[in-house]
Amino acid sequence: MTAQQLFALTPGEPAGIGPDLCLLLARQAQPHALIAIASRELLAERANCLNLDIRLITVGPGNWPSAPAAAGSLFVWDTPLTAAVQPGQLDPANAAYVLETLTRAGQGCLDGHFAGMITAPVHKGVINQAGIAFSGHTEFLAELTHSEQVVMMLATHGLRVALVTTHLPLKDVAAAITAERLTRVSRILDHDLRSKFGIARPRILVCGLNPHAGEGGHLGREEIEVIEPTLELLRGEGIDLVGPLPADTLFTPKHLEHCDAVLAMYHDQGLPVLKYKGFGAAVNITLGLPIIRTSVDHGTALDLAGSGRIDSGSLQVALDTAYQMAAAGGKR
Amino acid sequence: MTAQQLFALTPGEPAGIGPDLCLLLARQAQPHALIAIASRELLAERANCLNLDIRLITVGPGNWPSAPAAAGSLFVWDTPLTAAVQPGQLDPANAAYVLETLTRAGQGCLDGHFAGMITAPVHKGVINQAGIAFSGHTEFLAELTHSEQVVMMLATHGLRVALVTTHLPLKDVAAAITAERLTRVSRILDHDLRSKFGIARPRILVCGLNPHAGEGGHLGREEIEVIEPTLELLRGEGIDLVGPLPADTLFTPKHLEHCDAVLAMYHDQGLPVLKYKGFGAAVNITLGLPIIRTSVDHGTALDLAGSGRIDSGSLQVALDTAYQMAAAGGKR
Repeated sequence: MTAQQLFALTPGEPAGIGPDLCLLLARQAQPHALIAIASRELLAERANCLNLDIRLITVGPGNWPSAPAAAGSLFVWDTPLTAAVQPGQLDPANAAYVLETLTRAGQGCLDGHFAGMITAPVHKGVINQAGIAFSGHTEFLAELTHSEQVVMMLATHGLRVALVTTHLPLKDVAAAITAERLTRVSRILDHDLRSKFGIARPRILVCGLNPHAGEGGHLGREEIEVIEPTLELLRGEGIDLVGPLPADTLFTPKHLEHCDAVLAMYHDQGLPVLKYKGFGAAVNITLGLPIIRTSVDHGTALDLAGSGRIDSGSLQVALDTAYQMAAAGGKR
Repeated sequence: MTAQQLFALTPGEPAGIGPDLCLLLARQAQPHALIAIASRELLAERANCLNLDIRLITVGPGNWPSAPAAAGSLFVWDTPLTAAVQPGQLDPANAAYVLETLTRAGQGCLDGHFAGMITAPVHKGVINQAGIAFSGHTEFLAELTHSEQVVMMLATHGLRVALVTTHLPLKDVAAAITAERLTRVSRILDHDLRSKFGIARPRILVCGLNPHAGEGGHLGREEIEVIEPTLELLRGEGIDLVGPLPADTLFTPKHLEHCDAVLAMYHDQGLPVLKYKGFGAAVNITLGLPIIRTSVDHGTALDLAGSGRIDSGSLQVALDTAYQMAAAGGKR
């Protein structure tokens, strides 16, 4: 077997629904060998809690599996907790554990042991409470892989939305839409749609920043001063960018039928429609990394941990997307 | 008959698709007497252009119809153009004509002759080119009716979205979200859902301003400093406001099933999902006016005027909504 057949799965926050999702998923066989990077004890306890009979098979460096696990089994790269976990109860003592699982997954991808990594949700607050500066998976993996710029893209069946800016207060968005940032993000989006999704010539629809894309300057001048000239230069590089278009009319069949991705200027411009369309089956993909990383599109849902009243649909989509990306060309 | 049975219809920009839409609509009978406020000559020429056999019946003050028009007929309150119209060719000479049709409709509503008005699109640019300050139907009608604050709401089957701010450059949005504005808009939304839509106790979901509704202050502090305390005060007045909620997860069945309207903080936060969901069948409603006013949700489509390749679906929804609002309680 080759390293392309191993995928890393991080259950994230141990008190959240991440461990539950991994166990629910293990009831069915996966087409590739999936390695949960987590505390074996945590998974055993949570399986007990959920009344799930999942066989945990310890694997790790020097001892990787040679085939996918059977239905009802889950490979685990055992990573010890610092403190015992109560479902729903955050504990800063386990923040370092969470980061260690991410480091093992990310470094394993860089080293070629894993073809990609799939992440369940972490809880930023409790990691910061532990005194560790942490603003999210994406930023953590960018640093680990020495990536200068990454791009957040969400996808569901029939729609991909990438963002120029992500987790910024709204008041800071307009100033962050610079020619430099728009150029870097557009190039990464175009590059990764080719190299990780196998699209020969991606067509990208670009939203304006302002309502009605500025309406000829009446509702803001960023389109005229920044966005239009930048898109024009990028078209000269062979990137197929359409826009800037008004965001409120862009998400209609007439426009979407003929595009491979939408580039939105900020979080709440692009994601409400993506999540509305893809409810329960959306995946978060980090572009611009030298590795493949996909994630569920929801949070830790602390109140549901251990309850069994959850749906592993988004995690399965995240897995399927990672498999497809690895098949389409894998690492750049 | 009573005045409640007359509705005013303004075709808007004469070179756009407004006249076409009114003529297409007249092929079927309407449940109420609908008065097109427009140049009779323009309508006759456009009907000819579209190869439509519509009988135009001149009406006006002192000569209102006593029953709806039959299929194939349209009541016209003749309002003369200044210059002849070529479909698709804007002419500032007719700007005053466009405003006169709006004045007749709005004043007729105020005077009780009309139960409501329904507007087809105008072209702001050409009116401004004529040297007349004009920023849209909504603002024009607010001034005509001496309304201090109006609220833009879009609706489609199963979803209503109202906006705290509308046509502002994005960089100015955060500063415009004041306790005062949010209070006025919320009160109008609650009031009009009761008085114009007959909803006894409207439940309103409120979006945060920032991504993830600020995530406890990490992604912006407007939720903590402005939005939350304002909503709390308004709840004390008996307004059922839920939030502030993250906009990207608010538009999902779990939340939407139990609400009557969503209040978004700005244009591109709320309208992409509304127009995605309601493609071709969305209606724009102005709340806060002492009259009923609904509108199509699209523009003048100058390139399609006279072509016949248009869909009057949105205008029919605008009419149906105005009829329902009049039936549900009408004017406040």
